[in-house]
Amino acid sequence: MNIDLIRAAATRLQGRARRTPLLSSPFLDEMAGKRILVKPECLQHTGSFKFRGAWSALSALPDADRAKGVFAYSSGNHAQGVAHAAALHGVASVILMPSDAPALKIANTRALGAEVVLYDRAAESRESIGAAMAVERGLTLIKPYDDPQVIAGQGTVGLEIAQQAAQFGVTQAAVLVPCGGGGLTAGVALALEADAPAMKVHPVEPQGFDDTARALATGKIVANTRMAGSICDAILTPAPGEKAFHIMQRLCGPGQVVGDDDALRAMAAAFARLKIVVEPGGAAALAAALYQASQIASDTVIVVTSGGNVDPALFSQALTRFGDGS
Amino acid sequence: MNIDLIRAAATRLQGRARRTPLLSSPFLDEMAGKRILVKPECLQHTGSFKFRGAWSALSALPDADRAKGVFAYSSGNHAQGVAHAAALHGVASVILMPSDAPALKIANTRALGAEVVLYDRAAESRESIGAAMAVERGLTLIKPYDDPQVIAGQGTVGLEIAQQAAQFGVTQAAVLVPCGGGGLTAGVALALEADAPAMKVHPVEPQGFDDTARALATGKIVANTRMAGSICDAILTPAPGEKAFHIMQRLCGPGQVVGDDDALRAMAAAFARLKIVVEPGGAAALAAALYQASQIASDTVIVVTSGGNVDPALFSQALTRFGDGS
Repeated sequence: MNIDLIRAAATRLQGRARRTPLLSSPFLDEMAGKRILVKPECLQHTGSFKFRGAWSALSALPDADRAKGVFAYSSGNHAQGVAHAAALHGVASVILMPSDAPALKIANTRALGAEVVLYDRAAESRESIGAAMAVERGLTLIKPYDDPQVIAGQGTVGLEIAQQAAQFGVTQAAVLVPCGGGGLTAGVALALEADAPAMKVHPVEPQGFDDTARALATGKIVANTRMAGSICDAILTPAPGEKAFHIMQRLCGPGQVVGDDDALRAMAAAFARLKIVVEPGGAAALAAALYQASQIASDTVIVVTSGGNVDPALFSQALTRFGDGS
Repeated sequence: MNIDLIRAAATRLQGRARRTPLLSSPFLDEMAGKRILVKPECLQHTGSFKFRGAWSALSALPDADRAKGVFAYSSGNHAQGVAHAAALHGVASVILMPSDAPALKIANTRALGAEVVLYDRAAESRESIGAAMAVERGLTLIKPYDDPQVIAGQGTVGLEIAQQAAQFGVTQAAVLVPCGGGGLTAGVALALEADAPAMKVHPVEPQGFDDTARALATGKIVANTRMAGSICDAILTPAPGEKAFHIMQRLCGPGQVVGDDDALRAMAAAFARLKIVVEPGGAAALAAALYQASQIASDTVIVVTSGGNVDPALFSQALTRFGDGS
């Protein structure tokens, strides 16, 4: 896993992934007392950065394998990324979702072209179902984060950050990234090591789900004790992926942790000041930048808002409770 | 007023205005039964395209005039565009607003660096106050739309549309633009006449405020009979500007008209499918594309979402009433 893999992914993603802009607002700068630059991956195809990793992984498969189709376990952003990337490649995708997944997520994933296979979380093992499908139909598993080509795809966010920040005259910054399994954080860190080595990446996690922060602090992978209990659903994962962790351990600074209320408040700030829709997990890094600025030494903070797939009711709640997020 | 003025404005705006991306979603394509491409000027600095015209006009002033400062009549997007463009130029701006303007708009305009002068709508004439300020302080008026340099700045949206659509292989399309005084519509039409002559521009207005549609139909400028009564506040103007009208008369197709509910519904669709925040007036063209697609002959529709400065309560209402806008 090295920078060459990310550059190769960038070539394959050229004209396929959206090059999201780098946004800013004098209001956010004022709130944080720092210069804030925001990379809005919520504007990416399917509403999250996951499309990059999915496209990267699919496009890296040998033609014969890809032609047979792919599958993934996910009810969230990874599912939509894989479904859309497969549809654009003209190949089949199967997404395994628990039968209690929200109807809207199932419908959206189907509408993007995937075959959704539901399983009973209590009675069935998704891994057995997946393994059987792989054998019977020749489908290839696209992992959500612990795969070099997926990390490489997410790393293209970092390549763009380096280029776009340089256009603002910024080469030194703290870079805050919402962190679940660590694929995005690790990919961005690897890209910046090469193209903007004076930038330091910090993973940001929800309170009570700070597996990566603790792993970085203790030097070994640790798991979360629970899997539910935060609205930041997009970044609730059992533990950092091994490949991602080894990269983060070498390159990333201490993690930051934000509460659910600050995530909602940051969603309101992004609404009012950037005119973008961010989901709770996607707003974690922005929340850390705006409301925990004193924990950050750098005068310039670059923030990834990683996704925007949020329920209208929850979004309205953020606006009602937090106005313009200030 | 010609294309050279727009190209010159584009040079002055380089690195100053944000180059907004061109967005798309398979869900919107499905809803309209056409290919929909969206130019989200809500992501522009200050949350609307108005920053382009303001920067263009300010940067076109002789240095000695600009140094004395500028003023504008506006309580909306033009005010914020002028305030921010002036602050970035390091010159003073005075914004005249009625004393009953929403407190939030006054606060935002001040926070962007403007001096806000309030006047009593019933007892005072803003024009007299403005004229006095111009004489006493040497301030230059920046008009909201009926000015060649303002139209030229807004026209840079059209230059970008031509370039970005070509990257999608699109050279032929109906281009729908939310229309108030016509500065944006005329500028975009002039730019596309030069760079994408197979695209046809259509102004979109709120029901009951279709002055431009009627002016285009009858061949002479006509006024709206009222000035309030639609939530599409950003595009409620008394009548099209003269300079804009002459351009639109030569280049633009028939206008389209949308109701307030369809504007709200399009805001919900933009939230769900593009992850952008659009204000009612800014969503007018998207509403026409999604819900009146049968009125459009072209298979491809390019839509400008012109602004995103919307009250959280009204935005929540759009989400509550219209879900994902489908």
